[in-house]
Amino acid sequence: MDKKYKLIYFNVKGKGEVIRLIFTYGKIPYEDVRIESSQWPALKPNTPFGQLPYIEFDGKTLAQSNAIARYLAKQCDLTPTTDWEQAQADELSDVVQDIKTIARPVNPVYEKDEAKRKSLLPDVLAAVTQLLDKVEARLAANTSGWLVGNKISWIDLLFFTTTEYYVTVFGKEVLAKYEHQHKLYTRIKQIPQIAAYLEKRIDTVI
Amino acid sequence: MDKKYKLIYFNVKGKGEVIRLIFTYGKIPYEDVRIESSQWPALKPNTPFGQLPYIEFDGKTLAQSNAIARYLAKQCDLTPTTDWEQAQADELSDVVQDIKTIARPVNPVYEKDEAKRKSLLPDVLAAVTQLLDKVEARLAANTSGWLVGNKISWIDLLFFTTTEYYVTVFGKEVLAKYEHQHKLYTRIKQIPQIAAYLEKRIDTVI
Ligand SMILES: N[C@@H](CCC(=O)N[C@@H](CS)C(=O)NCC(=O)O)C(=O)O
Ligand SMILES: N[C@@H](CCC(=O)N[C@@H](CS)C(=O)NCC(=O)O)C(=O)O
Repeated sequence: MDKKYKLIYFNVKGKGEVIRLIFTYGKIPYEDVRIESSQWPALKPNTPFGQLPYIEFDGKTLAQSNAIARYLAKQCDLTPTTDWEQAQADELSDVVQDIKTIARPVNPVYEKDEAKRKSLLPDVLAAVTQLLDKVEARLAANTSGWLVGNKISWIDLLFFTTTEYYVTVFGKEVLAKYEHQHKLYTRIKQIPQIAAYLEKRIDTVI
Repeated sequence: MDKKYKLIYFNVKGKGEVIRLIFTYGKIPYEDVRIESSQWPALKPNTPFGQLPYIEFDGKTLAQSNAIARYLAKQCDLTPTTDWEQAQADELSDVVQDIKTIARPVNPVYEKDEAKRKSLLPDVLAAVTQLLDKVEARLAANTSGWLVGNKISWIDLLFFTTTEYYVTVFGKEVLAKYEHQHKLYTRIKQIPQIAAYLEKRIDTVI
């Protein structure tokens, strides 16, 4: 049985990118398996719950991006320190899922009709902005500059991928409005192993 | 500041019921605040992320049902034992969220048009059944009869509420198909403090 981690996901950043970033941050070797759409119908019935991402190691599988991230975080000191900080990270991780669900109708990967995307954009952006405002307030209140507690944790890496996502879907102007999110984004980008990873990362739109 | 927990949710079982069950199982006193739809527009802007449920205690708030459940589980020995078991519970908790998202179009609370519900039912039921089959296989493989590891954990209580939910939406026949889910459901129902709670629980459809 293979002890080495394998990540199985599509050839996009999406819900899999946080897992790649955790492996990278923790300097954990892994195989980055990228499935093409044409391969998916044959693979789907053999996945743990019919969706990607999932990880495989040691003869075991684990699906659900947040569950994977929370588990891997424990293997490389990316878990927040206290129960309460862990709860706040969990809360934010589900807020991030809600942001992606809200933004889905204007995501160019799922909605190809540009006119339709444009007509939906104002409402979607208003709903997303309300959530981002709350995240910004929380960041502003934490003097460490991390989302939770005094140290970096998996939720910061997840939020990094969320920031990349909302910049792609809504434009750079949105990030420019959020001083603390911008600082967090830059800070993570500069972590040496993350910087090295980003430089040679496979380029995908989303 | 009030040290006592307060749960703020609508007057339904929904995403709040698992929290009520954890409080009940752990014999933790809490105030069960039930918001009527008419009160909601005024309250919404003052909630942590514009949605219910959330909990309040000690001057702090925590939103997101799974985050709340995972946090409270730590206060009353409902956390699975190992990192791996915790990961499996996390995985299943997000599968449960996916089941509810898939079933939403045929949920009588959200879709009032019965003809429409009926026309959508076969496809929705097929998708839900695929996930329930996988949960059943996992339960069958675990000799303890609990979803994860050797002891009851918060995921069993969450799955109890999911079982009540799918029985309401799809009928008792679905549960009858799943021997192990049926056993788990009955076993939880018989835990003394849960049995006492269920007997006097406020009756709501969903
Ligand atoms: N809640 C899951 C959602 C996973 C999900 O939506 N996966 C999509 C791609 S991002 C997928 O597998 N789509 C293909 C399909 O459902 O057939 C998670 O966070 O991992
Ligand atoms: N991901 C959240 C979802 C919460 C959610 O969907 N809440 C609904 C009721 S079940 C709500 O607050 N709806 C009213 C609204 O959005 O205005 C959780 O699991 O807590």
